[in-house]
Amino acid sequence: MVITNPHSIHYLTGHYEEPYERFWAFYLNQNGGHSLIANRLFTLDEVTGTEILWYEDGEDGVELLNTRIDHQKSLGVDDGMTARFLLRLMELKAAPEYKLSSGCMDTVRAHKDKEEQDKMRHASAINDAAMAEFEKLIRPGVSEKGIVDQMLEIYRRLGGEKFSFSPSVGFGGNAANGHHEPDDTVLKYGDCVLFDVGCVADGYCSDMTRTFFYGEVKDSHRLVYETVLKAQRAAEAAIRPGVPLKDIDQVARDIITEAGYGEYFTHRLGHFIGREVHEKGEVSSASPLIAEPGMVFSIEPGIYIPGEVGVRIEDLVLVTEDGVEILNHYTKELQVIPSES
Amino acid sequence: MVITNPHSIHYLTGHYEEPYERFWAFYLNQNGGHSLIANRLFTLDEVTGTEILWYEDGEDGVELLNTRIDHQKSLGVDDGMTARFLLRLMELKAAPEYKLSSGCMDTVRAHKDKEEQDKMRHASAINDAAMAEFEKLIRPGVSEKGIVDQMLEIYRRLGGEKFSFSPSVGFGGNAANGHHEPDDTVLKYGDCVLFDVGCVADGYCSDMTRTFFYGEVKDSHRLVYETVLKAQRAAEAAIRPGVPLKDIDQVARDIITEAGYGEYFTHRLGHFIGREVHEKGEVSSASPLIAEPGMVFSIEPGIYIPGEVGVRIEDLVLVTEDGVEILNHYTKELQVIPSES
Repeated sequence: MVITNPHSIHYLTGHYEEPYERFWAFYLNQNGGHSLIANRLFTLDEVTGTEILWYEDGEDGVELLNTRIDHQKSLGVDDGMTARFLLRLMELKAAPEYKLSSGCMDTVRAHKDKEEQDKMRHASAINDAAMAEFEKLIRPGVSEKGIVDQMLEIYRRLGGEKFSFSPSVGFGGNAANGHHEPDDTVLKYGDCVLFDVGCVADGYCSDMTRTFFYGEVKDSHRLVYETVLKAQRAAEAAIRPGVPLKDIDQVARDIITEAGYGEYFTHRLGHFIGREVHEKGEVSSASPLIAEPGMVFSIEPGIYIPGEVGVRIEDLVLVTEDGVEILNHYTKELQVIPSES
Repeated sequence: MVITNPHSIHYLTGHYEEPYERFWAFYLNQNGGHSLIANRLFTLDEVTGTEILWYEDGEDGVELLNTRIDHQKSLGVDDGMTARFLLRLMELKAAPEYKLSSGCMDTVRAHKDKEEQDKMRHASAINDAAMAEFEKLIRPGVSEKGIVDQMLEIYRRLGGEKFSFSPSVGFGGNAANGHHEPDDTVLKYGDCVLFDVGCVADGYCSDMTRTFFYGEVKDSHRLVYETVLKAQRAAEAAIRPGVPLKDIDQVARDIITEAGYGEYFTHRLGHFIGREVHEKGEVSSASPLIAEPGMVFSIEPGIYIPGEVGVRIEDLVLVTEDGVEILNHYTKELQVIPSES
């Protein structure tokens, strides 16, 4: 099989490269004889026990890979291999058949070992501490961008290296837009304030969402909040080895639907996370996965009423031998930030 | 054809989405009847004149796309479509044949119209102004990371929105590592200081490299610098409509080779740039492209002597009707930053 996901190559070889459009692949043969295909300008020098096939800009790295492939057997490729390289392999008749085969890597990466678990805990501890700082930025006159602009420095001060994804900050109706880009919207009395944020520390990602209210919380908004919180807690409480992840999604979805907000919960309950902020595997009605020790994923129900209010509450969780460990500890109780400072 | 590059979809429809692992595609049929395939949680609301096919998490967006495809004809897919979606299309027997067809989009995007040219000039003007600020950060005791940490704020103050890529800052031997990650290395007397940096402004990218020296410049390093500068200027001077880009690469490469540094210039001379920092099209010995008005690319020769010194000088250039416009104006003369402040 051919692996082109740079995070998976990193996982297997210890070497990370961001190849942009260049070809960067790891060929694994079950009979042994693994090869890395690398552009000369990559800075590999510490990969041991693996043949490195070098090509230069202007040369065809895929053709080089093809010299190593067993052309009689079906070839596994990973989900993210791009058509540029996959169609070229097909053109070269590299194999009689191509199969998506990231599954085994995804499974290995989905189960975090002790060392990885510690790193996930650490990244989430930084995220908890950062959320306390972010909450203090909710002040009269502040804009969404004004808050976002201060976040990276806070993470760095707390030991984070960089964002794990572009932070989502939404006030009022903006929080109801699934992928709202923070803009110059200024905070208004009665707004909800949604922070979906995370950092990378020691190569592993955190990801947490909290929703605050500014000045006051309307009864109708409080009901939305309490419904999301109830769904979020119930889903977390349902996690233990052996439980299908679709059932965990159902627990949260049922609570939100029974409260009458079903149509406003428009996404899956959660996603896997680790070296990448979104890894393969989801907590959704379509997920075929069963909770197993070592898995880390998000639990993030939300209710989004267009133009009015959006509430999402998200923790990362680790499935343990006999239950679940919640990796985030920042309070989930409804918090109303006073409008006078 | 099916377009999945989010920047190309943005270019064609005015709508940008970062889909992560979700399916987000624009289907173009030469007989008309274009369709966007979108996840419900995307925030599309202003796309007019195009059918939108919605799917939800847990549903199969590719199957939905397949309902619109003419199964008798070959199907174009773009270079970056991932195997996850391409192999699924093949499984559904969407077409008898699949062809890489980003070429037409790449060609359109490679030729910047007047409005885009203005945006490219603007992003590069910010980059010029930022470089002047970055140069001031070269001070006794500073580390590579210490400089990088201040860059985003400088860009934002000058009107940039974000980095166009993670900034490259290398001192001394680190500058000879093509993709060195800025670390805690502290500036030493006699070091070269390489800054490869850029920002995004109004959706378009800048990208420029300058190399300074700190305290003093050894004669051998001066020779390296002057060789790179000569190659860079000669390549820029060779640009006009009708000239093969491989010839422009050759101009720079010959100068460096004749000076005896050929083996230390390990990469292509340049890459196209626009909405993305690396767009399709390169200035290399293998490039089939001919310079045409409206094209914007980088000219960035370098000499990298492992463990000792790395010099790269990079401008963005715009091919005009009768020659070339250099988009960067920051000085390229060798600058030695005094070691006492």
